[in-house]
Amino acid sequence: MTSTDTAVTARLAAFAVETDPATWPDTVRREALRSFFNAMGCALGGARHAMVDIADKTLGAFAGPGQATLFGRARKSDILHATLINGLASSIYSFDDTHEVAVVHPSGPIAAAALALAEHRPVSGADLLAGFTLGVEMTCRLCLGTTVPPADGSFAWSGTGITVGLGAAIAAGRMLRLDTERMRVAMGLALSQASGFRAMHGTATVALMPAHAGQMGLRAALMAEQGFTAGLSALEGHYGFLSVFCNNPDLDALAGDLGQRWEIPRNTYKPYPCGIVIHPILDACLKLRADHRPDPDRIVSVAIQASPGAMKLCNNRNPKDEMQAHVSLHHWTALAFIRGTARIQDMDTETAVKDPALMAFQDKVNASLNPALAADQTVVEIEMADGAKHTCRIEHGIGSRLNPMSDTDLERKFAGLAEPIVGPARATELIQRCWAIASAPDAGELARAAA
Amino acid sequence: MTSTDTAVTARLAAFAVETDPATWPDTVRREALRSFFNAMGCALGGARHAMVDIADKTLGAFAGPGQATLFGRARKSDILHATLINGLASSIYSFDDTHEVAVVHPSGPIAAAALALAEHRPVSGADLLAGFTLGVEMTCRLCLGTTVPPADGSFAWSGTGITVGLGAAIAAGRMLRLDTERMRVAMGLALSQASGFRAMHGTATVALMPAHAGQMGLRAALMAEQGFTAGLSALEGHYGFLSVFCNNPDLDALAGDLGQRWEIPRNTYKPYPCGIVIHPILDACLKLRADHRPDPDRIVSVAIQASPGAMKLCNNRNPKDEMQAHVSLHHWTALAFIRGTARIQDMDTETAVKDPALMAFQDKVNASLNPALAADQTVVEIEMADGAKHTCRIEHGIGSRLNPMSDTDLERKFAGLAEPIVGPARATELIQRCWAIASAPDAGELARAAA
Repeated sequence: MTSTDTAVTARLAAFAVETDPATWPDTVRREALRSFFNAMGCALGGARHAMVDIADKTLGAFAGPGQATLFGRARKSDILHATLINGLASSIYSFDDTHEVAVVHPSGPIAAAALALAEHRPVSGADLLAGFTLGVEMTCRLCLGTTVPPADGSFAWSGTGITVGLGAAIAAGRMLRLDTERMRVAMGLALSQASGFRAMHGTATVALMPAHAGQMGLRAALMAEQGFTAGLSALEGHYGFLSVFCNNPDLDALAGDLGQRWEIPRNTYKPYPCGIVIHPILDACLKLRADHRPDPDRIVSVAIQASPGAMKLCNNRNPKDEMQAHVSLHHWTALAFIRGTARIQDMDTETAVKDPALMAFQDKVNASLNPALAADQTVVEIEMADGAKHTCRIEHGIGSRLNPMSDTDLERKFAGLAEPIVGPARATELIQRCWAIASAPDAGELARAAA
Repeated sequence: MTSTDTAVTARLAAFAVETDPATWPDTVRREALRSFFNAMGCALGGARHAMVDIADKTLGAFAGPGQATLFGRARKSDILHATLINGLASSIYSFDDTHEVAVVHPSGPIAAAALALAEHRPVSGADLLAGFTLGVEMTCRLCLGTTVPPADGSFAWSGTGITVGLGAAIAAGRMLRLDTERMRVAMGLALSQASGFRAMHGTATVALMPAHAGQMGLRAALMAEQGFTAGLSALEGHYGFLSVFCNNPDLDALAGDLGQRWEIPRNTYKPYPCGIVIHPILDACLKLRADHRPDPDRIVSVAIQASPGAMKLCNNRNPKDEMQAHVSLHHWTALAFIRGTARIQDMDTETAVKDPALMAFQDKVNASLNPALAADQTVVEIEMADGAKHTCRIEHGIGSRLNPMSDTDLERKFAGLAEPIVGPARATELIQRCWAIASAPDAGELARAAA
């Protein structure tokens, strides 16, 4: 680590405190709004998931006064509990956003923290969006600077878990108008609680990690505002964040060209509720099914050339429950060929995960590593009982940056998530409120409409 | 990492769930009680520290119903907030306990979590002590197994920060009578939130890290009880705790000889409110002062041979405030020669840290590494203006395991901490209640007496 003297913490803090959103490119504003919109839809869609219910029931007994809305519920709670529960809801279906290179999922926990804070300490929608944008941007930069080559952080860390707390602290700190020194304290507090590793994949804790980080990021900003102290150089300081999470941090990726280079335009949104690295595989399988209409019983084998990420995270045959199904490429491949669908309902433990036909089909699915493939690429070949073979290569899966979801796609996704929770009329209202957040005089109104 | 198949998480969980305290050696029971006693005194002594006030004032606005006592305060709060605040109080003066080899400070956050839980879900004092003992034992084992050679975890991690959450989860899980599987979930939840690095040294965040871990450990046990899911092999699992915090875990130290070898008898207690590695230096300086009565103005130099830990953590000249003074061997050396004292008051920012005489004296103090010295050893040589030299070698500092504080010493320490907060009569009552906790029908009574 040669970065001790480069003061990246101070530079990031000063930028977050001082930058004027009026100077930001339209592409930044546009993608920030789409990120926020998608996060809000995901949070609504996950609001009544069984694991979110457990978390709210368990921790609601210790929660404070009704300051902030719990999405899709009839109660309010204190803003830290609301951040945890709404953040958990946004991540619980693995349906959130993904920075195309850092493969981090930044928006859900940051949006949850920003909206909860906005109900307690009112700000305009523009100010909320400014904080949210900076939080997402800094999260993506931190993940790029620590986990993506040439940086060499351990793949075992949860990239989102260890970086999104910083983003939530910066979002909240900006909304609280912290000065640069207190912003550095907020960053230090949040980074000192950075945590999460991938052994939790396939359980509800994988969704708790980002939610927890968002909650702790908000707490960090609030404590910094009141004068709690922390190290001011948490990133590059001796025995600091970069020294423990990364051997070779990429400081340019982390802190270079602030205000010139922006990462948020490289954010992407998932069309399918599963691990992002499964997406091109689903595209390929659904296309093979549409093109050739193969009888699933007559498919002998499905040979998948998988990207390194897909092999590391999702090469999991026969998941036992919904949380494991999120990260099983075998499950989704079977679904694609047998049901032709890839929806939230398609990972329900009772009706999908334990379906004997789906389980049996997974035995025909084999993934092998093709290290040349990017995360949005795959090649899938099926062989039929008569010896016929069909192949589909996906260059850029749907939802990747070079094949992005349109605003209309995002609206359809939002409606599908929100309608079961708040009904069609309220879902339509929320869609309109989200798109219009930049001109809302009081950002908290959006949160209150999500009850 | 060759530990993937050794199931240490399951073994630790099964032991924590099944072990019968009646089978434990008397040395374990005795040291557990002394550890608990010392932690309670530290929590009382720190209860009204300015940084604890800030944390309580800031986060109390989001806290829940009055389920648990905030030590030294007139209010109660929910048990998670109480765990954070009481745990922070126990650590804020760096006056807590230390496992002699792992150099972890386990008891404060675990006692805070156990006592808060005991007020909400009543248990006997014996059951509280059983949970506390297991939590401390597992924290020490985890720190031994990951940060002490031959294990090679990074020194940059806060050993307490990354391990004491596991202990709090196990303590609370035992008190909640979790079964083995749910105990494993609690461990997974807590470990997935393990965090903290030493760039925070010299700030209040260094005390927040263990308090936060204790709070998250309690939360983990409560969520596990209600059916939240987590990976069941958080320690040894692929991409698990051991893989990210350590390259060469010592699995025998971590999980060997459960029920036969115990670590808690190697716990020690500080006579001075500062970094443990400064203690032998203070012993040496105070002894040189007592033996030779040197005029501080005529001391030309103080040459300190320091252990590796003292050099890495406390070689900090002219601290700027109280939190930095905790970890400045120069500050305490100056105090010893000029004032002959080493008390909490001696790191007050205004009256001690900014004292010109103390600041000037520190220029004469030089520490150099002697890698052969253990953490409880030092050699200090002073040179006088007339050329005379005096040397003192400390083999085992006061409070180390081979030169331990007696029960009477601990009582005197407790009284000195508690009396300014709750008055002499209540301090005496609390001392008696702490020593008698093993036979208390309702452990929560002790916490309520600490209001």
